[in-house]
Amino acid sequence: MEQVQQFLTDNGGRFVDELFQFLRIQSVSADSAFQPQMRQAAEFVRDQFARIGLETEIIETAGHPIVYASWTKAEGLPTVLIYGHYDVQPPDPLDQWVTPPFEPTIRNGCVYARGATDDKGQLFTHIKSVEAWLETTGRLPINVKFVFEGEEEVGSENLDQFLTDNTERVACDIAVISDTSQYAPDMPAITYGLRGGIFGEFTVSGPNQDLHSGIYGGAIANPANEAARLVSQLIDANGKILIPGFYDDVVALTDEERHQFASLPFDETKFLSNIGMDSAWGDSDFSTTERRWARPSVDINGIISGYTGEGPKSIIPAKATVKWSSRLVPDQDPDKIVEALKTLLQDNLAAGLTLDVTVWGTGAGIVCNTNSPYMNAARSAIESAFGVAPVMIREGGSIPVVATFRDVLSVDTLLLGWGQNTDNLHSPNEHFRLQDFHRGTHASACLWNEIAEFVS
Amino acid sequence: MEQVQQFLTDNGGRFVDELFQFLRIQSVSADSAFQPQMRQAAEFVRDQFARIGLETEIIETAGHPIVYASWTKAEGLPTVLIYGHYDVQPPDPLDQWVTPPFEPTIRNGCVYARGATDDKGQLFTHIKSVEAWLETTGRLPINVKFVFEGEEEVGSENLDQFLTDNTERVACDIAVISDTSQYAPDMPAITYGLRGGIFGEFTVSGPNQDLHSGIYGGAIANPANEAARLVSQLIDANGKILIPGFYDDVVALTDEERHQFASLPFDETKFLSNIGMDSAWGDSDFSTTERRWARPSVDINGIISGYTGEGPKSIIPAKATVKWSSRLVPDQDPDKIVEALKTLLQDNLAAGLTLDVTVWGTGAGIVCNTNSPYMNAARSAIESAFGVAPVMIREGGSIPVVATFRDVLSVDTLLLGWGQNTDNLHSPNEHFRLQDFHRGTHASACLWNEIAEFVS
Repeated sequence: MEQVQQFLTDNGGRFVDELFQFLRIQSVSADSAFQPQMRQAAEFVRDQFARIGLETEIIETAGHPIVYASWTKAEGLPTVLIYGHYDVQPPDPLDQWVTPPFEPTIRNGCVYARGATDDKGQLFTHIKSVEAWLETTGRLPINVKFVFEGEEEVGSENLDQFLTDNTERVACDIAVISDTSQYAPDMPAITYGLRGGIFGEFTVSGPNQDLHSGIYGGAIANPANEAARLVSQLIDANGKILIPGFYDDVVALTDEERHQFASLPFDETKFLSNIGMDSAWGDSDFSTTERRWARPSVDINGIISGYTGEGPKSIIPAKATVKWSSRLVPDQDPDKIVEALKTLLQDNLAAGLTLDVTVWGTGAGIVCNTNSPYMNAARSAIESAFGVAPVMIREGGSIPVVATFRDVLSVDTLLLGWGQNTDNLHSPNEHFRLQDFHRGTHASACLWNEIAEFVS
Repeated sequence: MEQVQQFLTDNGGRFVDELFQFLRIQSVSADSAFQPQMRQAAEFVRDQFARIGLETEIIETAGHPIVYASWTKAEGLPTVLIYGHYDVQPPDPLDQWVTPPFEPTIRNGCVYARGATDDKGQLFTHIKSVEAWLETTGRLPINVKFVFEGEEEVGSENLDQFLTDNTERVACDIAVISDTSQYAPDMPAITYGLRGGIFGEFTVSGPNQDLHSGIYGGAIANPANEAARLVSQLIDANGKILIPGFYDDVVALTDEERHQFASLPFDETKFLSNIGMDSAWGDSDFSTTERRWARPSVDINGIISGYTGEGPKSIIPAKATVKWSSRLVPDQDPDKIVEALKTLLQDNLAAGLTLDVTVWGTGAGIVCNTNSPYMNAARSAIESAFGVAPVMIREGGSIPVVATFRDVLSVDTLLLGWGQNTDNLHSPNEHFRLQDFHRGTHASACLWNEIAEFVS
């Protein structure tokens, strides 16, 4: 293990260089214009695996490919399935980046680039920890299987099918994902709960073209007015969601968990000032941390309708498109909620308009067992690498594959985040602290060892 | 008069060629990128006036210039002030034009171009009628003054100031504007009432950048959600406007006027199918014609917020911008309504968000005296040129200067529309029937004569 650690320390500079190569690839899964770069990113990952001696291949899907790799020579020992995603969020709005999103730059000890922390930088720590074991000892203390997909940012549409079709190939004892965050700088965390999600879009269409609001105003339903009204039907002014049945299956927070959340240091003023706001908002029955981690939400992600250039243009727009997402908690059923939402929108649609609803992806909320040997192995590995025991947290984001691992492979997932939730995930100037990257590689290398020990 | 008519007939082809030159100039007042083209359009109009022997000049304003011209040698006879606007609406969405908006093309007897009917084509009829009188008789039967502005599509911000500062120069007995429509093809109309308008934009701002909806969703107010909610506070699902006091000063429609509206031929099914809709909508206490002409409305003209590209992007947008317009009827006070709207928006703003409201322009609704000698002169001129007496109508659009003429110059306005309200004003594929253009020049030439007769 000492040899492995030394290798990681000695090669840290090279790892960063290789990460830069990875970050330069514009693997934006949401935009079909970037399909060649998606392929290039998959090939980059495959080549990484091949170079360190794993069996690996690019597996085609109906969308972007999956990169699979494995090392399974530790007979009789546990098998860990490591998941990550090589696709990234769109970089817009481009004009808010200090340095271009696909030209990684180091400032203040952080690498700035789209995907730096979400998830290229974090997944890379596990490739490098396996490389360290194999280069120094010629073996791993456990078996590993890697599934790195290219569709996480667009709803992982083809991943479930792959896992369902390959249950034997991907069979494992535990899954590991580094796509979450530490609780705070130098305060590593194990995330035992995640919100699920629904990601969709609806378009309200009216006249066959934009119309003069003087000639037609008041005589026909305006798609922009009505799209806005539909949004107002989804969630009220206090943050209560109005979709019928939305809260029916929500598992209530226990007093113990509420107490645990409240015991974590949380500077709400700083949390808000970091994002330029002076007030939180939402369902006042719950704390801000509770609302973020363990309560469902509905957010509009984008709206486009009519004239959006400079100055006025007095038209009735032909249509309005609203992108929306919902974050879900156990045991809400995404499909049931999608149906209720569709019915609500359709029932409230004004005369003369038509509605088209698209859902790109859904995933259930998750809470994992916090007392398993794997959880204990992870605690120990993180303490070794970071010098401090991790706190147990939930997070508000969604990693739908965790539900699939539970449902299809019957395994829990260790969500071990090396980054910070202030790393501007999904925002301009995304970054990842290099110290966190390096500690991540060490924690990962320890984890393989600790799992072998705790589980045996 | 016969000579004048002959001249108009003989020179019709040349008039169309000159109109094409005018239509090729991209005089989009709303977009500052087109400032050179705005200047070019003003110079084109000035050169037209100069060529036919009017005193003319380009008058600078804080925004786009006004072109003024006059012929006042008919001592003791009435003076007519002719208003028009050489600016046009933005041509977006460009991809819906069959032929490019600034490359005029003739199809099915119509000229297709942005501004063909609104208002370049219509104002041009009055230049040409004056040209015909001067070229054939060397004089006009009355005095004329032209005020052609370049800011009608952006709220006429500097026109009122010009008129107020130059009351003697623009003093007149009656105003004439051709910026409305016939009631239907071959069914010319005098528009005796117009809706006023308010044209503005509001922006709801929240976080200093787009945020991950998993990390922040439910914890802070979402500017897109809340902008939509604010829209829903302005107007209800049935078309009733919710701005406090909005209806207080509305002059009720008389039974006589409702009866007159109802007596006009109106094929609602065709009206709707022309715009690709199968149902009207709005305040059910009023007919569709009443809602369009004589009832106030609130329309969203455009919304932009967050991610609007392909696929999902699960963010909370940093801000949302909503363009809105309201159509007003006598005696609603635009300023009072703007204040009530601002208060309503501010009072309903969620915690943590900020609001910025811009108003580009306002104008009161108008109803003119239908029994004046000028109105009778117009009836007679139109009957001469179109072979049929005009119907008396109101229109839903706004021409705020009509209120200014009333308030500052104490004159009524003759609203004589040569086009059709199906000419795609403010929409892609705007057009103007050439036959209507030519009949407009004839009606205009007759009008100068009829005014001299009816008023003397």
